[in-house]
Amino acid sequence: MRRYVVRRAANSIRKYATAPQPQPPTQRSSPTTAEYEKRVEDLKEYAPLRRLYPRILSNPTELSTLPDRYNASINLQQRQQSDEPSPVHSVYVHGRIEKLAHLGSNLHFIHITDGKTHTQVTASYSSMPEFLLKDDFRNLHKLLRVGDHIRVRGTLHEVERMPGTIGLRANQLPEIIAPSLHLIPKGIAKKEALARRRHVAMMTDPQLTNAIRIRHIIQQTMRSYFDGFRFTEVNTPILGFGASGAAARSFRTIATEMTNVDLRLRIAPELFLKRMIVGDIGPVYEIGPAFRNEGVDATHNPEFTMCEFYEPHANKKVLISRTRNILVRIVKALRKAHSEGILKEPPHIPENINFDGQWKTLEFIPTLESVIGERLDNPNFKFPMIAVKTRAELRSTVTALTTLHLFLKLPLPTNATLPRLLDSLGSHLIEPLCDNITWIVNHPVVMSPLAKSFRCSKTEQYVAARAELYINGVELMNCYEEENSPFDQRKKLVEQQLLRTVVGSDVHWDGFEDVEPQADGEEFQVDENYLEALEWGLPPTGGWGCGIDRLVMLFSGQKRIADVLPFGSLRNVVTMGKGHPDAVFETQRKDDSKDDSAESGHQSALE
Amino acid sequence: MRRYVVRRAANSIRKYATAPQPQPPTQRSSPTTAEYEKRVEDLKEYAPLRRLYPRILSNPTELSTLPDRYNASINLQQRQQSDEPSPVHSVYVHGRIEKLAHLGSNLHFIHITDGKTHTQVTASYSSMPEFLLKDDFRNLHKLLRVGDHIRVRGTLHEVERMPGTIGLRANQLPEIIAPSLHLIPKGIAKKEALARRRHVAMMTDPQLTNAIRIRHIIQQTMRSYFDGFRFTEVNTPILGFGASGAAARSFRTIATEMTNVDLRLRIAPELFLKRMIVGDIGPVYEIGPAFRNEGVDATHNPEFTMCEFYEPHANKKVLISRTRNILVRIVKALRKAHSEGILKEPPHIPENINFDGQWKTLEFIPTLESVIGERLDNPNFKFPMIAVKTRAELRSTVTALTTLHLFLKLPLPTNATLPRLLDSLGSHLIEPLCDNITWIVNHPVVMSPLAKSFRCSKTEQYVAARAELYINGVELMNCYEEENSPFDQRKKLVEQQLLRTVVGSDVHWDGFEDVEPQADGEEFQVDENYLEALEWGLPPTGGWGCGIDRLVMLFSGQKRIADVLPFGSLRNVVTMGKGHPDAVFETQRKDDSKDDSAESGHQSALE
Repeated sequence: MRRYVVRRAANSIRKYATAPQPQPPTQRSSPTTAEYEKRVEDLKEYAPLRRLYPRILSNPTELSTLPDRYNASINLQQRQQSDEPSPVHSVYVHGRIEKLAHLGSNLHFIHITDGKTHTQVTASYSSMPEFLLKDDFRNLHKLLRVGDHIRVRGTLHEVERMPGTIGLRANQLPEIIAPSLHLIPKGIAKKEALARRRHVAMMTDPQLTNAIRIRHIIQQTMRSYFDGFRFTEVNTPILGFGASGAAARSFRTIATEMTNVDLRLRIAPELFLKRMIVGDIGPVYEIGPAFRNEGVDATHNPEFTMCEFYEPHANKKVLISRTRNILVRIVKALRKAHSEGILKEPPHIPENINFDGQWKTLEFIPTLESVIGERLDNPNFKFPMIAVKTRAELRSTVTALTTLHLFLKLPLPTNATLPRLLDSLGSHLIEPLCDNITWIVNHPVVMSPLAKSFRCSKTEQYVAARAELYINGVELMNCYEEENSPFDQRKKLVEQQLLRTVVGSDVHWDGFEDVEPQADGEEFQVDENYLEALEWGLPPTGGWGCGIDRLVMLFSGQKRIADVLPFGSLRNVVTMGKGHPDAVFETQRKDDSKDDSAESGHQSALE
Repeated sequence: MRRYVVRRAANSIRKYATAPQPQPPTQRSSPTTAEYEKRVEDLKEYAPLRRLYPRILSNPTELSTLPDRYNASINLQQRQQSDEPSPVHSVYVHGRIEKLAHLGSNLHFIHITDGKTHTQVTASYSSMPEFLLKDDFRNLHKLLRVGDHIRVRGTLHEVERMPGTIGLRANQLPEIIAPSLHLIPKGIAKKEALARRRHVAMMTDPQLTNAIRIRHIIQQTMRSYFDGFRFTEVNTPILGFGASGAAARSFRTIATEMTNVDLRLRIAPELFLKRMIVGDIGPVYEIGPAFRNEGVDATHNPEFTMCEFYEPHANKKVLISRTRNILVRIVKALRKAHSEGILKEPPHIPENINFDGQWKTLEFIPTLESVIGERLDNPNFKFPMIAVKTRAELRSTVTALTTLHLFLKLPLPTNATLPRLLDSLGSHLIEPLCDNITWIVNHPVVMSPLAKSFRCSKTEQYVAARAELYINGVELMNCYEEENSPFDQRKKLVEQQLLRTVVGSDVHWDGFEDVEPQADGEEFQVDENYLEALEWGLPPTGGWGCGIDRLVMLFSGQKRIADVLPFGSLRNVVTMGKGHPDAVFETQRKDDSKDDSAESGHQSALE
């Protein structure tokens, strides 16, 4: 009924009523350096800016194929018994300049790479087309710098004095297809400064690139191992509700569509994966992110990558044997990757460890007993079995372990609940004995509420069917026989709540008091839905967990988790959000001692 | 100096001062059914509860190996030319009961599975040990039910009337190792009810299990494709700062250690991956989660899985050819998995699509022009090129496209900015033409600020070097030649800001007004750090993105994303956090028409 009327814009739209919104800067917002300004001016003289970043319409020849092409061409020449100068292929390649060398103003050696292969391009004025002016040739070579991406046409040849190495003789002027507007630092610039510019760290720090590739090879090896045994890789939810089984603080968020729901980022995929075993999916694994809203330090980042697998009918023996096989395969795969040039640097295979050999095993309670020279089966040390009987019994044990800490001059853990006191004793007294490669097995039940438990014939204590692998003092893998009884699982989860109410304290040397449990750790919620799932029948199941980042640290020889994460720790990532990094490099070149750490407290800029 | 004094607990610890904290229920908190109570009582009569869930100390024989064992044993018998009754192996197996059949009270057929292989166990009283009482034999078989996990010792035999099928003749009473306390519904129970109990859905809905395995095969195929071309798989940060390139609303969270930082869950890994290309890592890919804080519907979930790859020097042609190769490989892998029994149900390979054949290509602007019968190059329709010159020009275009919507009786998109109006025209006018398998290419620049742009010779408009693949009307893949000029990238990102300030509205039929842009979509922040990364030189790069969940939907024939996610949509997952599901099944058995949907608004329980 109404007619289609296109009115002139000026008439049909009222003026936009609100005040003009702040506009983002149309120019580089942070201070530029004189060096940067000059570089941009020089490039503008060479070509309009838009022509410095052309579309690529025809595919370049891959650098890795050049030797084969050259040999094919030589063979053809020989078959044709031609005496003519070698009719080598004419090719067209792309690459990033790695190194430049000039022999006077008429001969230049340009080393390029596509990230995998390295090739030398020789550009001499004499090989250029006749119409090319000598000045243009010289100007380009003044302009080119390390880091520029260029394309070159030329012919293949065997590089003089490097028999077998195939290079390119340019027969057209190399063309810039993406310049670097900055000077790439020589060697590895200061790590803290590079934290804001991980792309520069990747260009200059071969250890970082190696760690990135080692991660890939480790994950690839694990996947192919599990796939070979017909495990199914699954992706379980990351956003969910609170309860998760692991005792750690989680990240909270809110969905626009469900503003009344307290969403959490998962701490571990464990309970979802075990639900899938109940669902009869068969053995499953997941390699994916997990999150703990806790501190950033050398070995912890709030975001990390875990591998977990769950296998029906597998007991501790099976889990231990799979662990060994996985490690042996990873070592083999890393060595192979290095021999094939996928890893440019050798992996760090700890020499003191015989992955194929006999590994040491320490039983938690007997080991602790032998270190402190006292049996832990007297009433003061009695560990709760499946369920703590009374709070008084629990107090007695907490007191005894707190006293033991003080006697041995060990720092008390914050919020010193029974599991934390035991964990602390494990760290201080058992872990130092974990030289080379060592299993710690049969932890007290209270430390592992999701594991099955049994009465150990040696100590007559109830212990968890658990094995934890340490390599050179670092915990790397964790194996459980999973608790599959809904009745026992409920008891253990409820017990966890009771354990949180009694905390040892060092405020009185010869007397202790309960202190209010601190608000650290997740408020613990029993996952009723999970307990219901167990009622449908979880078969006896072996579960396995591994922190991938730590494994990457081990095999790349890095000591900080930030050095194996492509963009560093969460602190580094957050720093990137502060916009243009300042002109760190210039400062740094002048005064390398100045600490321009990316981790210093500049966060107010984001508030 | 102080002495080590262990005092009695009662003296050394003061009473815990605060009021007793609420304790989690030590009993099942939700109402149980009479059926459940009876079952638990029956089981208790059979054995104490803790003995229903024994540890497994010796490894069972894998069901899949039984035929080989049987044949090896027969061969041995023949080689020994023995006339003795077949000395078949005695084995010990585990499995979940799938089906039970009774032939009187003395002979029972128990079908068990380990999730991969199915085996028939024959239990007859006559094969049992002599000391077994007839009553115990009968009682167990009254107790056993579908869903129970059992272990059985017995001898292998060829099943009567099923030559070639190897079964087990029990010679000991089968033993429960994890009972099901509930009745497993026959066939597929109502999907909405199962949403809270995905473990039951997995047991009963073969389509769900198939979808889970199809996801694994798809991701496995992609990884092996990329690995074959020496791409590096990487894990880039999920927690980060706001700006991400994609225009969508993000989830916010706060880290305990950096409470003043506004953390976001990533919308896409795109900008991190391109930084790695700048860093000279070579071609990279990532398969991982991404998050959009938007609605849940049939094809959208706030949490989803993406695959992205970035390949230096690859243009649109290369990306298109890789897309084809990946799809062809996936189809082949799925068919193979079905033929090998890894997929129990056939994959859904759309018959109308020839993945190897010629695919249709539609150019965005010419296609739109031909549908509406009008050229889009008059001043009213002029699309912004790289940068919008003036707001008046933008208004004119927004008005024209709004009018076009009204004229064609198309619903206006909410917050009708220019990119959204174009997107809406694409959805309503171009996508319906995307039958079978179709590329839409060369989108208007404003729709793709992260893609390189060029002047199209046909339309003389600036368009994006982009290709978007539709299969049976669903967008599946997206290919970009990436914008690598820091100068043009800045212009495009700034332009995005301007575009948000002019919004078409239908409040006046024959006149329009700007309305305040609604608070939907992310507040757009130019990522200065990314622009700085481009200054170090991003080579010409092809980028590719694919929503894995949609691909799983396609190849499993599912219409809802919730049906291919192991635990359903975010709404389903949140519902799990409400604790024990009510006794849905009982209700349902009695009144199947009652909508006990997991998606109904019970969320207040979580407040």
